Amino acid sequence: MRAVGLIVEYNPFHNGHAHHLKASKEAAKADVVIAVMSGNFLQRGEPALVSKWYRTRMALLNGVDIVIELPYRFAVQKAETFANGAVSILDAVGCESLCFGSESGDLSAFYQTIDFLEGQQTRFDDHIKRFIDTGVSYPKAVSLSFRQLPDSERYLDLAKPNNILGFQYIKAINQQKSSIKALTVPRKNADYHDENFASETIASATSIRKAIFSNEDGKSEIDQYVPEPTNQLLQQYLHENQAFHQWENYWSFLQFRLIHSSPEELREIYEVEEGLEHRLLSAALVSNNFQEFMKKIKTKRYTWTRLQRLCVHILTNTKKAEMDGNSEKASYLRLLGMTTIGKAYLNKRKKEFSLPLVSKLSSFKEKEILLDVKAARVYSLVIPNQLKNEMIKQEYKQPPILVE
Amino acid sequence: MRAVGLIVEYNPFHNGHAHHLKASKEAAKADVVIAVMSGNFLQRGEPALVSKWYRTRMALLNGVDIVIELPYRFAVQKAETFANGAVSILDAVGCESLCFGSESGDLSAFYQTIDFLEGQQTRFDDHIKRFIDTGVSYPKAVSLSFRQLPDSERYLDLAKPNNILGFQYIKAINQQKSSIKALTVPRKNADYHDENFASETIASATSIRKAIFSNEDGKSEIDQYVPEPTNQLLQQYLHENQAFHQWENYWSFLQFRLIHSSPEELREIYEVEEGLEHRLLSAALVSNNFQEFMKKIKTKRYTWTRLQRLCVHILTNTKKAEMDGNSEKASYLRLLGMTTIGKAYLNKRKKEFSLPLVSKLSSFKEKEILLDVKAARVYSLVIPNQLKNEMIKQEYKQPPILVE
Repeated sequence: MRAVGLIVEYNPFHNGHAHHLKASKEAAKADVVIAVMSGNFLQRGEPALVSKWYRTRMALLNGVDIVIELPYRFAVQKAETFANGAVSILDAVGCESLCFGSESGDLSAFYQTIDFLEGQQTRFDDHIKRFIDTGVSYPKAVSLSFRQLPDSERYLDLAKPNNILGFQYIKAINQQKSSIKALTVPRKNADYHDENFASETIASATSIRKAIFSNEDGKSEIDQYVPEPTNQLLQQYLHENQAFHQWENYWSFLQFRLIHSSPEELREIYEVEEGLEHRLLSAALVSNNFQEFMKKIKTKRYTWTRLQRLCVHILTNTKKAEMDGNSEKASYLRLLGMTTIGKAYLNKRKKEFSLPLVSKLSSFKEKEILLDVKAARVYSLVIPNQLKNEMIKQEYKQPPILVE
Repeated sequence: MRAVGLIVEYNPFHNGHAHHLKASKEAAKADVVIAVMSGNFLQRGEPALVSKWYRTRMALLNGVDIVIELPYRFAVQKAETFANGAVSILDAVGCESLCFGSESGDLSAFYQTIDFLEGQQTRFDDHIKRFIDTGVSYPKAVSLSFRQLPDSERYLDLAKPNNILGFQYIKAINQQKSSIKALTVPRKNADYHDENFASETIASATSIRKAIFSNEDGKSEIDQYVPEPTNQLLQQYLHENQAFHQWENYWSFLQFRLIHSSPEELREIYEVEEGLEHRLLSAALVSNNFQEFMKKIKTKRYTWTRLQRLCVHILTNTKKAEMDGNSEKASYLRLLGMTTIGKAYLNKRKKEFSLPLVSKLSSFKEKEILLDVKAARVYSLVIPNQLKNEMIKQEYKQPPILVE
């Protein structure tokens, strides 16, 4: 059985994802699709619209065969770390290939760009350092420095988010000396952050979320952009938990945590650096909501997503001591769900997996997984009381979802 | 100008307090009444119904001339520490006497009991140790041990809460070698924790709060038990801030703090001892509200109030390191409000005060006062967004209240 790996967030699963899934399976000539998916908090430092269990169900009902959770310590991270964790998981479950969507759609462009950059490493690093010193953020410095290199216009546009991710996936494969073969399919019709609906059937997850939040009946407006199972599951989630998750709902918890902490304590939180603790504290005292707070702490030096991730780490109370010095590779495979085909694949191949497969949380004692548990608990806090505790318990009780 | 000191919480100020105030002023032949009052969190480990500023106003409109805040580090404490802080403040502002209400009403009984206990100290301590070893709480062990002493029935009933407090006030006066003269007036008609209305005009603060919370229109039901200014201020507070404060409103913050913390972190919190951190964490994961949570963590070993205080310390994130090893006496006098008479007293006497008088928070840099600031911030968290931030700012902006 030949498996292709996808790296996803499915927030929520939409027609663009369905297209990517189908194209990837064809390109890889695969029998089985394995997705490594962020848990309840995402790479951009945001809570997912609905829980990882619902998003797992969406994935399985739409053609994915196995869903493995990308652990918190890789999921809420910059592209490089995110890629390292995801690739190490796909490698551990025996994927023959990894297929990502990209603005470019041309795999050779990725390899050429990597080769090109290796040849220019010193010059590139010098540029980056110089840009950083002018006060801009790291991603901005990278993208500006790239353009300073001679002939850079011939290579990949590293200002595009999906190009950056793909670039990091391939770098991770090289670094980890993985035998996974990289594949890319072009993204269809919707820019990653496009907030407006772009075509008849394809829209970005960002624009879909925007429609959902701008309209209590947003579901009907998104009908044409998501497969039917997504629509049903979103409605079911809303019915069961009375709300979709968004940052504003967590604002009072973030504010609480900030205003009762000392600067010394805040400095222990992962990514709180360079005196940011004081900035966070004073902004928390005078902000009425999360948007206001973010605008107050935003500077040229930090990207919005970096700051959002930092805020997630404050919510989950994730310390530098828990994150620094860890391996760049995952150490377990948390199985969130599978189809019958996925199950057959697991039964046949799991003995060869290079990492432990965790189906039942209570039987796995590695400390690292507690970060995922904490994230799930904190994620649950914004839904009504009785339901909240059900969701907290679910983290230990829920067996992997099986879709037949 | 002769000043009498009172130690109060006024949660809220009621007719019993008015009676105590008048009787104290007469007994002390005083011109000026100085109250040292708990801030936003109280000795029983609860948020006050309304903020300290509103309670200050109640006090001033009902005959108190000067209100000084009992700092957090004494206010949310067992009787002994509470008494030490309060007495040291009344001593520092030059009170000639301290007058407390007691079930006994007979001052000599307090001195005789203290003398009696000093004579029996070893035996008393042995009893206490033995009772503690059976698993009961410290206050329970004290009260049981007392009854084991020969002839103890001739002395003060140390099971009564106001007798215990009075006893601790006098011990504090002795210990601090203060020249303050103790006075006591009998409490009228209402037991401290009595939940039912006991007479025509006097009811306990507990029963008044119960009436307020059991009935949105509770104000009308309490009319006869509180002076008019209390009634008006309660209504104004409700109108401005949309709610009175109670533990249940803070439950989600407490739960959040518990479920994202490690046992090691919880152990740093003041009063979290003997493995309580694990108990707190597991109860937080399965409780739907504060009452449920409290019932789950309650054991014979800890009193309900001790556990509530511990929960307040978690909310305010008060560490052992901030509390242990501090002086038993206060180090500043935070002025919350005064009448014209109070102002005249302060102008005349403040040069003799043995502690700094803090009228403006921003000009006082002692670290200790940050505990009060943090408590005020956390207290504000349960009122609606814009108002919450107003209240957070108030802590620094509010000058002492002046009632003319």
